[in-house]
Amino acid sequence: MAKTRKPRQLILGVDIGGTKIAGGLVTLKGRLNECMVVPTLAQKGRDVSLGQIYVLIGRLLRLAGGKENVCGIGICSPGPLNPATGIVLNPPNLPGWHNVPLAALVRKRFGLPALVENDANAAGLAEVLFGAAAGCRHVFYVTLSTGIGTGIIVDGKIYHGKNGVAGEGGHVVVDHRSPYLCGCGSRGCIEALASGPGMTRRARVLLEQQHGAPSLLRSMTVGDLTRLTPKMIGEAAKRRDAIARVILDETAYYLGVWLGGVISMLDPEMIVIGGGVSQIGKPLFDKIRATVPIFTINRQFVPELPIVPAKLRTNVGVYGAASLFLPGTM
Amino acid sequence: MAKTRKPRQLILGVDIGGTKIAGGLVTLKGRLNECMVVPTLAQKGRDVSLGQIYVLIGRLLRLAGGKENVCGIGICSPGPLNPATGIVLNPPNLPGWHNVPLAALVRKRFGLPALVENDANAAGLAEVLFGAAAGCRHVFYVTLSTGIGTGIIVDGKIYHGKNGVAGEGGHVVVDHRSPYLCGCGSRGCIEALASGPGMTRRARVLLEQQHGAPSLLRSMTVGDLTRLTPKMIGEAAKRRDAIARVILDETAYYLGVWLGGVISMLDPEMIVIGGGVSQIGKPLFDKIRATVPIFTINRQFVPELPIVPAKLRTNVGVYGAASLFLPGTM
Repeated sequence: MAKTRKPRQLILGVDIGGTKIAGGLVTLKGRLNECMVVPTLAQKGRDVSLGQIYVLIGRLLRLAGGKENVCGIGICSPGPLNPATGIVLNPPNLPGWHNVPLAALVRKRFGLPALVENDANAAGLAEVLFGAAAGCRHVFYVTLSTGIGTGIIVDGKIYHGKNGVAGEGGHVVVDHRSPYLCGCGSRGCIEALASGPGMTRRARVLLEQQHGAPSLLRSMTVGDLTRLTPKMIGEAAKRRDAIARVILDETAYYLGVWLGGVISMLDPEMIVIGGGVSQIGKPLFDKIRATVPIFTINRQFVPELPIVPAKLRTNVGVYGAASLFLPGTM
Repeated sequence: MAKTRKPRQLILGVDIGGTKIAGGLVTLKGRLNECMVVPTLAQKGRDVSLGQIYVLIGRLLRLAGGKENVCGIGICSPGPLNPATGIVLNPPNLPGWHNVPLAALVRKRFGLPALVENDANAAGLAEVLFGAAAGCRHVFYVTLSTGIGTGIIVDGKIYHGKNGVAGEGGHVVVDHRSPYLCGCGSRGCIEALASGPGMTRRARVLLEQQHGAPSLLRSMTVGDLTRLTPKMIGEAAKRRDAIARVILDETAYYLGVWLGGVISMLDPEMIVIGGGVSQIGKPLFDKIRATVPIFTINRQFVPELPIVPAKLRTNVGVYGAASLFLPGTM
């Protein structure tokens, strides 16, 4: 008889990005099935993007065999947002979004429970559940990418703070005298210094200052420094390019100063670093690990503190969104 | 009949400091009775100081009418220590103390449950239970004193991290280029810049640089700048002394940069600042409050975030120690 099948065994996860929306069906054991992607069409405005989200959810519900097989819809979105109310405040990457009650809209439209979470928080939770930090209770998660997003996991749950906006570690100021302004309006935030654009900006300044000095970065960009990427800096540094190495060392140094402070504050069990810039890999991680003990107090514990690359990559957002409906995480 | 009296209605709190040990009996409703103080005699070594602690506990147990009226002995001590094991590692203020199993020693000697906690953590908990942050769930507590101690309260409980050494916010680096070294071995920690000795050190440097400039600080110290105190700087600043105002402004600026980062990370419900230096009061708090929004990301929430003086003063340590045995705090 068909009645023997257990209903509500899947979670629908949606990851909203500035250019694409990914979605998938995740089992309660953390297996991701049926992943798909639609364009966000962010420039066409909020309603078009909301429409894209609805289309994606609709398709996934059909693939799930109907909403009776889905226990909830988890959504991760660029912040700021309030996870308690499910309202997306005003993300810079989603023009026209102001106080959008996303969880309520989805809940009403599909008749299923829905939760909304900041993307870095959700990614951190996914790493704790299914990734590099599996089994850990207290974890600091970092996405090094176009921005620097972080998530604080306390006792296996996302720490939200009073207004739901905790874990914005990317905007901790590590150099209050820095000439580099941050998109948040502050100065010398770790995001302004060590994100992808932060790295390439510092590299361009140095290349312009050292205009006579040869550098692989000049040939890699065919003389157009606006084409510079963090990946190029990583590659040139591996090939012992002096300017690339200065920039990479500085980046790791800033990250080490910053993470030293995080460790003094949070005494985490593990630090997990994901995002495109983290794929520079060993040269970056080695220098971060060497810098951290200089800038934290209880350095006797640092040798036992893993500072490791994230394990989940492309689908970390879908995993993270789905994680919101796993037992014990909220 | 005597049997009508309810037993185990008191908590014994002990606050170990570098010069004195305070103790008291606290009711489950948070009323402090029978407070007393003995000298720590720290220079005479660990065993003498332990003896002083035992004497104090013994006296308080007699005042309580016997150990059957006491449900536990809470102890707060300078860190680093491990609250989970009750072992005091190696506090700079208690020479000769290395891995002292304080909770176990007290438990064995008096046959009562015993817990040990870092003094700033305990003070933070006391402020949440009985002080300025009563009723709050997520609080960042700061002691501005000879050092800068902090405590992170999450959901009404002390956040300990993996090794029990979380909440060392005083050693977050706010100026990695600073000439000022910190006792912890790092550079430009907020403690090195804005603690009492941090303030007076900066003031002495400025007075020496500006050796021709008149300043009330010179007359207050009768020409001996080693006598300078944070209180003098506060008083001179109130009387519009230019050098004192520069030092006070800088102190508040550093604290604002630091707390801005704390707010980005923790999104607390309240920040409570205690300790001797905080008694400079309004001029310090006003400038901190003005600086914080410049160095945090979600500044729309800052106007609703109270940054307030601590309420508990002399006996905060005894309250904090006793708090460890109140229901729901551990």
